[in-house]
Amino acid sequence: MPLLNEISFPTDLRKLQKKQLSQICDELRSFIIEEASHNPGHLGSGLGVVELTVALHYVFNTPYDKIVWDVGHQAYPHKILTGRKERFHTNRKYKGISGFPKMSESEYDAFGTGHSSTSISATLGMAVASALQSETDRQHIAVIGDGSLTGGMSFEALNHAGVERSNILVIVNDNGIAIDKNVGGLSKYFTQITSSKTYNRVRNRIWNLFGGNSEYHQKSKNYVRRFFAAIKALLFRKGNLFESLGFRYFGPIDGNDVESLVKTLKDLKEINGPKVLHIATKKGKGLSKAENDPTLYHAPGTFDCETGEIKTISTEQIPPKFQDVFGLTLVELAEKNPKIVGITPAMLTGSSMTFLQKHFPERTFDVGIAEQHAVTFSAGLATQGLVPFCNIYSSFMQRALDQVIHDVALQNLPVIFCLDRAGLVGEDGATHHGFFDLALFRCIPNVIIASPLNEIDLRNLMFTAQSTKQPFVIRYPRGRGTIADWKKAMQPIEIGKGVCLKQGENMAIVSIGAIGQNALKAVDVLEKTGQKISVYDMRFLAPLDEILLHEIFKSHERIITLEDGVIEGGLGSAVMEFAVKNNYHIPVERLGIPRRFVEQGTIEELQAECKFDVDSIVKKIGARCEV
Amino acid sequence: MPLLNEISFPTDLRKLQKKQLSQICDELRSFIIEEASHNPGHLGSGLGVVELTVALHYVFNTPYDKIVWDVGHQAYPHKILTGRKERFHTNRKYKGISGFPKMSESEYDAFGTGHSSTSISATLGMAVASALQSETDRQHIAVIGDGSLTGGMSFEALNHAGVERSNILVIVNDNGIAIDKNVGGLSKYFTQITSSKTYNRVRNRIWNLFGGNSEYHQKSKNYVRRFFAAIKALLFRKGNLFESLGFRYFGPIDGNDVESLVKTLKDLKEINGPKVLHIATKKGKGLSKAENDPTLYHAPGTFDCETGEIKTISTEQIPPKFQDVFGLTLVELAEKNPKIVGITPAMLTGSSMTFLQKHFPERTFDVGIAEQHAVTFSAGLATQGLVPFCNIYSSFMQRALDQVIHDVALQNLPVIFCLDRAGLVGEDGATHHGFFDLALFRCIPNVIIASPLNEIDLRNLMFTAQSTKQPFVIRYPRGRGTIADWKKAMQPIEIGKGVCLKQGENMAIVSIGAIGQNALKAVDVLEKTGQKISVYDMRFLAPLDEILLHEIFKSHERIITLEDGVIEGGLGSAVMEFAVKNNYHIPVERLGIPRRFVEQGTIEELQAECKFDVDSIVKKIGARCEV
Repeated sequence: MPLLNEISFPTDLRKLQKKQLSQICDELRSFIIEEASHNPGHLGSGLGVVELTVALHYVFNTPYDKIVWDVGHQAYPHKILTGRKERFHTNRKYKGISGFPKMSESEYDAFGTGHSSTSISATLGMAVASALQSETDRQHIAVIGDGSLTGGMSFEALNHAGVERSNILVIVNDNGIAIDKNVGGLSKYFTQITSSKTYNRVRNRIWNLFGGNSEYHQKSKNYVRRFFAAIKALLFRKGNLFESLGFRYFGPIDGNDVESLVKTLKDLKEINGPKVLHIATKKGKGLSKAENDPTLYHAPGTFDCETGEIKTISTEQIPPKFQDVFGLTLVELAEKNPKIVGITPAMLTGSSMTFLQKHFPERTFDVGIAEQHAVTFSAGLATQGLVPFCNIYSSFMQRALDQVIHDVALQNLPVIFCLDRAGLVGEDGATHHGFFDLALFRCIPNVIIASPLNEIDLRNLMFTAQSTKQPFVIRYPRGRGTIADWKKAMQPIEIGKGVCLKQGENMAIVSIGAIGQNALKAVDVLEKTGQKISVYDMRFLAPLDEILLHEIFKSHERIITLEDGVIEGGLGSAVMEFAVKNNYHIPVERLGIPRRFVEQGTIEELQAECKFDVDSIVKKIGARCEV
Repeated sequence: MPLLNEISFPTDLRKLQKKQLSQICDELRSFIIEEASHNPGHLGSGLGVVELTVALHYVFNTPYDKIVWDVGHQAYPHKILTGRKERFHTNRKYKGISGFPKMSESEYDAFGTGHSSTSISATLGMAVASALQSETDRQHIAVIGDGSLTGGMSFEALNHAGVERSNILVIVNDNGIAIDKNVGGLSKYFTQITSSKTYNRVRNRIWNLFGGNSEYHQKSKNYVRRFFAAIKALLFRKGNLFESLGFRYFGPIDGNDVESLVKTLKDLKEINGPKVLHIATKKGKGLSKAENDPTLYHAPGTFDCETGEIKTISTEQIPPKFQDVFGLTLVELAEKNPKIVGITPAMLTGSSMTFLQKHFPERTFDVGIAEQHAVTFSAGLATQGLVPFCNIYSSFMQRALDQVIHDVALQNLPVIFCLDRAGLVGEDGATHHGFFDLALFRCIPNVIIASPLNEIDLRNLMFTAQSTKQPFVIRYPRGRGTIADWKKAMQPIEIGKGVCLKQGENMAIVSIGAIGQNALKAVDVLEKTGQKISVYDMRFLAPLDEILLHEIFKSHERIITLEDGVIEGGLGSAVMEFAVKNNYHIPVERLGIPRRFVEQGTIEELQAECKFDVDSIVKKIGARCEV
């Protein structure tokens, strides 16, 4: 990689001639494919924006100029070009570099991202700050996918930006796909714009006739713009969304043509005010298998870097992923209960709701990246007697908390929230851990909060939830469970009842959810040293099984609570409150995630850091018992 | 009121002739003005939609057909026409009818509202449910103001609705005003559409040429629509937002002309699929003072029903509203600190940020109803060294919790969140109480959480926050404080330090925020009976003053915590956790809001219901002490 080897920072890149940029793109792409093939991460998004990344750092004066990458899983080429090539092999690893932009990692990461649709708001904030502080030469660029644009806060930001006279360029990276195929009216709209070759041909001809972007003559340009708008309207029977909101709109152009990108960006740099550049790119560009199956290659795991062939491991006889237990169980339930519908905000594959979609497409609703709408839409469905299973990753559920409170809980509507990826999620790191859910939901009235120990409990909770007449949260972790033979007939679970998993003496571990497996393993280890520890699975955080807690407090001398969630406000807090209210005076200690953010790593590494992996539990109990 | 007297339900209304509807509107308007003049509530919004309400219930088969009123403060005429005329004098009163639509109150209230921008999502849920359950004759109508439309979730819902083949009619009630004047690109866009008389004239002529809506001939209509779009684009240099998203767009029409509304709605009833009807109305219609000052008359308090003159009370020498202390202090701080900026999502007047706007318009940002954007926009401002004071009502802050976690706290950005209307808010009721904030924020890392006892503490907290390098939450209640002479020189407050307000014996009340005044008053009463109770103001929920708590626990035999927030997860929980962690075995009891929703009433009535008004505190302490 003769050119890439010479580049550590954008200043190096800017020394190249324009015609060399295409080679840099090729090398960068090879570098990413090679690295990602053995160190798994997000692949397709980064490959799609190689040219854009090169062009942006070539044209703009980063880090003085600000680039914010929406979601941020497309930022690998950006990271490689901004001082992190040598450390890129530590991507997403414990103590390594993050898989997302992160302010504390590099001054080139103007804003940390991870969740969708934040980039325009943040960039506008920067642009307004520059204007107020008379840094009028600074450029502010948000790069946002067409998928992320469906998130409501993008629209809120566009609405505001359209009237601020700040220097903001929104680059809409239109690849027609979020993780799954993009959905909604906006997506259709983009497809229509982009596919209209006639329009583009006419448009470009006229534009060039008037001297292109470079010779900017206000009056004639205004005329041209009006003319374009009219042609567009005639062609599409609709107008331009961005222009409606006060933006100048440019495009669509080919986002995988680096020289044309450079030319366009240079032109746009000279135009003040809010602008949108609409580019069309190919997700997974450069790896044909990834181009052909962008959903699979969004984050493919390890693969052969020549052929793109994904290295599969045999999954027979090993326990299933919780998400698949959810997805397959939902189909089983839906077959018997015609009232059941499934709702997901753009996580059809990730939540395994693909199974429901295959069997009951008309009862499956992928609403796009739109968690708020997903929740209130579910509430609307529930008012009419349907049984909505609304599946949202725990971390993304934070975005719809008001809708849970105001539209679901207040009206006591029986919406079932299945929170996948709850607790520590591993390599995706700080933005994606789902460890606030228990604490956040515990204060909301009317809501049943449950978490299964294993696959069978998940099935039984889903079975139970479908006939419960109030909001029902079921939170379960990323990854696999513990029971390979999990397809048992379903049984109802008594709401608000915990269970004793193991009867011991003196000391009890009181846990909730799949993290209880750590307790069981730790207790097994301790049993070999002669210690008998009780393990209780509360199953429900609300309603809390106070009868069981009385039993536990009366028959033990020390209690440890365990949860895969933030310590403040969760199960441990609930148990402590119970102790004080009932005048129990035995020690209660809490294991869980401390009130601080946790970065990326394997789940085992992170559990160890937070001191609730099996070893830490063993040590904690062992240490104290010796005293 | 000869006609209105005969109407209890929409079935009565439908017996009238079309030409009588205008009289009903007049009577309804008089009824509302008369009632609202002595029983304060939301005025302007309801007056604006009298004709729309009458037309909707006249044309549609409610309650079988579903109407969802966005925000819902415009639903007074709806309530009066749907069985609640006789009880309307109890509007917003304790145990009376709610000031907002409420499913449990009437089958005509298809969905409860209060927070903005939920109506399209909920209505779409209902429409999809009807389609799935083969109730194809059912109509589903969302009525949403142009202000509410700027909330991101409206856009999420529009994006989804545009591709569902369900029967949904979105009525955009365009009055150019939310509470304050509406802002943003969308608002400008509406103004342009509505004010173009030429366009409307041309449009109506052509439309009538083709037979209007009534004779629906697909082919020619398609042609007409394309033609309209083209004219529109030529006139406005921009296209139609709703058409971009897959909606059929109709309007704008005069929303205060009842006969024309009836005609249009009847036509639209015959057209399947997602439709938008854009109507222009006058907020405050029928009361000239309200028409001229819609912000003041949004919720004017009591007024003279003939002249509209608002009955003012002398506010000299009485303590100020907390919001004014915030607003005026912000100006003081901003005068000395050029880095300070103010951000509000459409609550310029309600938060008293109007003062900042008057002094520093370029440093004041009303971003529209867009809490999520407000938070991340503030984060962007903070990255560039500015000091953003982001003022959001506590209840509305629920909508931006993910942005607080993901964009502010995770990056430890020094954004100052001022949460007005925290705790019980009184007459606005269940949707507007701000009592989850303490519990929700407590689990978020890096965030300082403070609450002032009085006006001077609020000032000092704001003074302190401006130079603190991490996220800072200051929550304070609706209404007035306790200190008329509050404009003292500001002083820094030590972060994480509580104070002893009153030193007593045996028993201590540990409180946070202005509710501490109830503790002081209760302790004064008890002092007369010879009991000396300590009162501590923690000031900060995070970091918690553990040094002070040790002192308190060591010198008292019983502790009562007091907070104007939900008991689970808030200050009381924190104190209980502290007790267990530190092996204190004295009783701790918690006063606050139980884990259930609380309806409307005066703040005193609601505090009494929740048992933390002064009397309840006295009784609680007195009763126990006698034992």
